[in-house]
Formats: sequence, C-alpha cells, structure tokens
Amino acid sequence: MKVNGIPYKTIWFENNKVNIIFQPAIPHSFEIRVLNNHEEIAQAIEKMWVRGAPAIGVAGAFGMLQGLLEANSKNYREYCVRVSERLKSTRPTAQNLFVGIDLVHEEIIKSSSWENACKNAEETARKIMDLSVLACERIGEIGSEIIKNGYSILTHCNAGWLACVDWGTALAPIYKSFRQGKDIFVFVDETRPRAQGANLTAWELGEEGVDHAVIADNAAGYFLYQNKINCVIVGADRIASNGDVANKIGTYTKAVVASECNTPFYVAAPISTIDFSCTNGGNIPIEERSPDEVHYTWGRDDNGNLTKVRTTPRKSKARNPAFDVTPAKYITGIITEKGIYTPDELSKLNIEE
Amino acid sequence: MKVNGIPYKTIWFENNKVNIIFQPAIPHSFEIRVLNNHEEIAQAIEKMWVRGAPAIGVAGAFGMLQGLLEANSKNYREYCVRVSERLKSTRPTAQNLFVGIDLVHEEIIKSSSWENACKNAEETARKIMDLSVLACERIGEIGSEIIKNGYSILTHCNAGWLACVDWGTALAPIYKSFRQGKDIFVFVDETRPRAQGANLTAWELGEEGVDHAVIADNAAGYFLYQNKINCVIVGADRIASNGDVANKIGTYTKAVVASECNTPFYVAAPISTIDFSCTNGGNIPIEERSPDEVHYTWGRDDNGNLTKVRTTPRKSKARNPAFDVTPAKYITGIITEKGIYTPDELSKLNIEE
Repeated sequence: MKVNGIPYKTIWFENNKVNIIFQPAIPHSFEIRVLNNHEEIAQAIEKMWVRGAPAIGVAGAFGMLQGLLEANSKNYREYCVRVSERLKSTRPTAQNLFVGIDLVHEEIIKSSSWENACKNAEETARKIMDLSVLACERIGEIGSEIIKNGYSILTHCNAGWLACVDWGTALAPIYKSFRQGKDIFVFVDETRPRAQGANLTAWELGEEGVDHAVIADNAAGYFLYQNKINCVIVGADRIASNGDVANKIGTYTKAVVASECNTPFYVAAPISTIDFSCTNGGNIPIEERSPDEVHYTWGRDDNGNLTKVRTTPRKSKARNPAFDVTPAKYITGIITEKGIYTPDELSKLNIEE
Repeated sequence: MKVNGIPYKTIWFENNKVNIIFQPAIPHSFEIRVLNNHEEIAQAIEKMWVRGAPAIGVAGAFGMLQGLLEANSKNYREYCVRVSERLKSTRPTAQNLFVGIDLVHEEIIKSSSWENACKNAEETARKIMDLSVLACERIGEIGSEIIKNGYSILTHCNAGWLACVDWGTALAPIYKSFRQGKDIFVFVDETRPRAQGANLTAWELGEEGVDHAVIADNAAGYFLYQNKINCVIVGADRIASNGDVANKIGTYTKAVVASECNTPFYVAAPISTIDFSCTNGGNIPIEERSPDEVHYTWGRDDNGNLTKVRTTPRKSKARNPAFDVTPAKYITGIITEKGIYTPDELSKLNIEE
C-alpha cells in the first residue's frame, strides 16, 4: 500500500537479506531496516519491529532461509532445527509463524543437499509471501461485500497492511471499499497499551486517504451503543477450530458490546490463521508482556523526539495480558480468502482442506 | 485520607480563600493551590484541577461564597446570579455541582443583607462539605459489606477521595474494607484518555497501602472473563431516576462485560448524585472534550519532567466523548449513604426524600 504515494510492502528479500519497514518509528518517521541473520529476525519479531500474524509468518519463513544461509553445508539440518526452535520461541500465540517456519523447514529436511535446500527454501519463502499478499487481497474483495456505502466501521489494534505483507486483513475490506468509491468512515481504537491503533492503523488510513478518527478504547462502547458503528472488523492471531478467536487484548470486550448492540462483529484472517488442531480458545496460551507497556506511553514530544512518559505512580504494579480470546458466539463471521464463514462452518472447512 | 502519612482533604476554606490539592500534578508531585475568586474556581473546575462529582459540588458551593465575597453589598444578588451561571457552565453533566451552587444561592437570595448572606452562605457551604465527607464515610461502611476477605475489585477512573472531599465513593468501601483488615486487591483501569485511574486511583491506593495493579482499559474484560474479579465498583456523575448512570467514558463497556460474566457491578454515589427530575439516561447530555486528550498522553519523562507525547499521526482526527450512560439493567446495586438500592428501588427513595 502507499507511503507518501509510493507503493510498499512491509517485508522483502533482496541481496540475500530480509528488509523490513521499522514499525516502532511509525507514525513519527518512516525507516527501513536490513536484518542480517535469523537471530536478528527473531529479535525483530520479539521487539515487534515486524508484527501482525501474516507478516511474522513471512518473517518466520525468511528467518528459516536466513538460518540455512548462515549454516555450512555439512551441519545445516541440525543447525536449522535450532533456528526453527529459536524463531518459534518468539511469539507463542502466533499460528502463522509456526506455519511459515514449518513449511520452509520441511523443504530443508527433504532436500538432497545444502545448495538444493537453499534454492527450495527461497522458492518456498517467496511463495508464502506471494500467497499471503494474494490471500489478503481476496479477503479485501470478499470482505468489501459487507461494507455498504455510508458505513462507519470500528477496528481494533492494527490488522492492516503493516501487519501483513500488503493489503492487511481487517483493513483490506476497508481499502477495497474505499477504492470502489464507497463513502466510509473508520473509528480506530487507540489500543492501549501499545497503541497500535493510534500509531499504525491511523497512519495507514491517512496515507491511503481513508477518513477516520482515533478514539480511546473506552469510547468504542459509547459509539456502538449510539448506533454510530455499522460493523466491527478485527484481525486474529489464532482461530480455534470451534471459531474462538485469540486477538489483541480488548477484542473480547468489543465483541461482547457489539453483540449486545446487535452490531455485526467480523474477524478477517487468512485460512492459515485457523489452527484446526486447537479445539477451542481455552487451549490458546495468553502471553503476559512487560508491565512497563502499561506504566509508560511512547510518542513524539513537542520537540519531535520519540520518548516515553510514565502515567502511573512509581510504587504501583501493573498487569499486562497481551491477548484475549473471543468466544465464537460473539462472532458474526470470519472473512477469509475463500469466503465468509460463521464460526460453526469452520469445521466443514477443515474437512475440505 | 493520607498523603505521605498525613491526613488531607481535597478542598478547604481558609482565610476567606478556597484551597485545593492541585490534581494535574498527581502522581508526580503533591501541590496545594489557593483560588482567589469565583472565576478561578470556575476555571479550576473546567481544567479539572478539582474534579469528581462530590468535590466539584463542594467547589461550586464555595464558588458561590467567593462570588458573594467579591460582590459589594448593594448589587450582590444580581452579581450572584451571574456567578451561579458561570459556575454552572463549567460541567453540564455534574448534578452535584448544580445542587451545591443552588443550596448556597438560595441562602443568598433569602438573606436580609450582604453581611447576613455572607454568614449564611459560609455556614451552608461548610455544611455541604461536612455532609459530603459524612456521606462518603457511610458509603464506605455500607459498601464494605459487599467486599469479602480475599476479594479482587475492579474500579474505573477515579472515584476516590481525590474526587470527593474525603474517603471517596467507589473507593470508600475499599478503604473501609482495608482498614477492617480484609485481604483485598484492586484492578485499576488506566482510564484513557485522561488516565485518572493510572494517575490518581493508583496513587491514592498506594498512599493508603492497598495492594493494586494498573491495567489497560482493554484488559478489564480479560480479567472479568477469567473470573479474577469478584466485583466492580465505579462512581457516578449523574444518576437518572430509573437507575441509568452517567459516568466516565468506558463505564458502560465494563458494565456490559461484567453482566455477561455474572460479576456484580456496583455504582457508589451519594444520594445527591441522583437527579430525580431526570427520568432516564437518554436525557443526560454527554460532553465531547478536546480531541487533544486522545492525541496526547501526559506523564513524567525520564528526566522527571511533566510532559505530553503524541501517539497519533498529525493528520488524524480524534473523537472524545467524556462520559457514557450505563443502562440500569446492567447495575447490581447503587451504594449510597442510606443503603444499597437496586435501580428499581430508586423511585421509592424519591418518595421518601
């Protein structure tokens, strides 16, 4: 999607190195970082320089490729087992990460030589990337059918193109609707504690020219109750086979209130986000991240410097669960690259797969 | 309540001047401000130097007294009409403000002379203050009955002693329970955009020694769903006669989720917060405050300076409703100085009054 009018992707492989858009600087500045090895990729995932389920799936795939390129031709199989473990350790809730890593790893395992492994691993990683872009674009086309002219849409966190390689998941139907000429408005949840809505989603929408307003997370319920929101669309980190959805902390709350207000609540995600081996959301582990994310807020000060301010007293503790699980019963539909499914219909999809 | 172990009130009248605790500096420093006339009091209410329904009720009462003291003995009645209008213009949702202003104004209207008015107005303002403290302490005693040993309580915004003259409303039952020796824990909603939970409630609880953790507003639903919260207690800005409650933005959302999780949801407020002339919450006007409250976060930087950082892109808009209305059906009980009432029982209370 566009940055200052120029089309970009969040991640690309060039001269045997992974390049990423450095997301912590957004919306304050636009920077590219080169990642030189699998450890730098692992750290980029951990530090959320690259983030969002589909993007880290692709980052994981290229991380395996980078690991393979670091290895020498003799011990590359053993080395890549450790690379896979290291990359998987970065984000325990990220289904796409595991899929991306495993697909490239399988190519490495079944290859006849290191040279052959390098060729096949790169082909596979690039294919994962291309399919990811294609899936997001299809999600946009299919999802745009639920957005009527004049709609206001609420979204939470950032499930835009910055969270993917291109297009986004939750934002893809919005971008497609906008390009179809529909008059739409987006309410953007700030999404504390990391403020990905205020930082990333608002920036993306602004760069594309989509009309929007950032709101405090507390205000979403007010606008839902006032019927100012026609539908909610969020992304997903992992979807259980019964339709329960793990996503950014606060998603559950929005879904409960949307349900109470009879406002349709959609989850947009590629099929690869569905973990058919996970029977329900209760089995999805929830990371608790550093309490400092709650104690501090990052932003740009009046001098233009990126800095953090503390809002809590020095003596106070904080708790910081990073995700929550939204039970299937609150979800109107799951927008995928193959169509829109009710949570109940996911099991059928598993049989087809 | 205590600050560094010394007992304080949020507002007091000394040497014919109103003194207040300067709340924008908390939790970063502790400062007292002297307000010299009714205009300074009006501005202190507008700028939220003094805040919370009961505290601004008392500030309004002393504001009328200050206005009277500024007036000369000839035109004091006309002058005080303008003072009343100015003070009432500061916060359109604040029922207690109107009550405090009107009670003192009535004394002024019916007085036989300026000297007589001054005497009666001061007596009345002091009485309002004393009754406010007493009401809060009773709310604490009565409300402590719902808090069992081992309870974790969720609260939103600041309805503590900083929002009152002493004790608080939502926090009074917590302070009483703590002093009764109960083992309790408080989840403190950060309460964006102004972060009164992170700034004020966490500071109050810390100064009193009550164990607590600040959480992002998005995380409250997670802890409710996990049954980590035994009850929710919040304050109120205005309560309609049918039991609908206007309170800080986000209250409605917490109430809906608490109801969904079968967690009791209580509102703690003095009877004076109930506006029996207001039949339902739909009639309560909702202020929309400056979008800058959403664009920026105030806090202490690493050098200890109070500063603000911007999280949103420069081009983005923001919407900022300051309050919402929680329909009575989500409210388990309203804790007042006269007892705990279900919303349905409020009308009975009106007949008794």
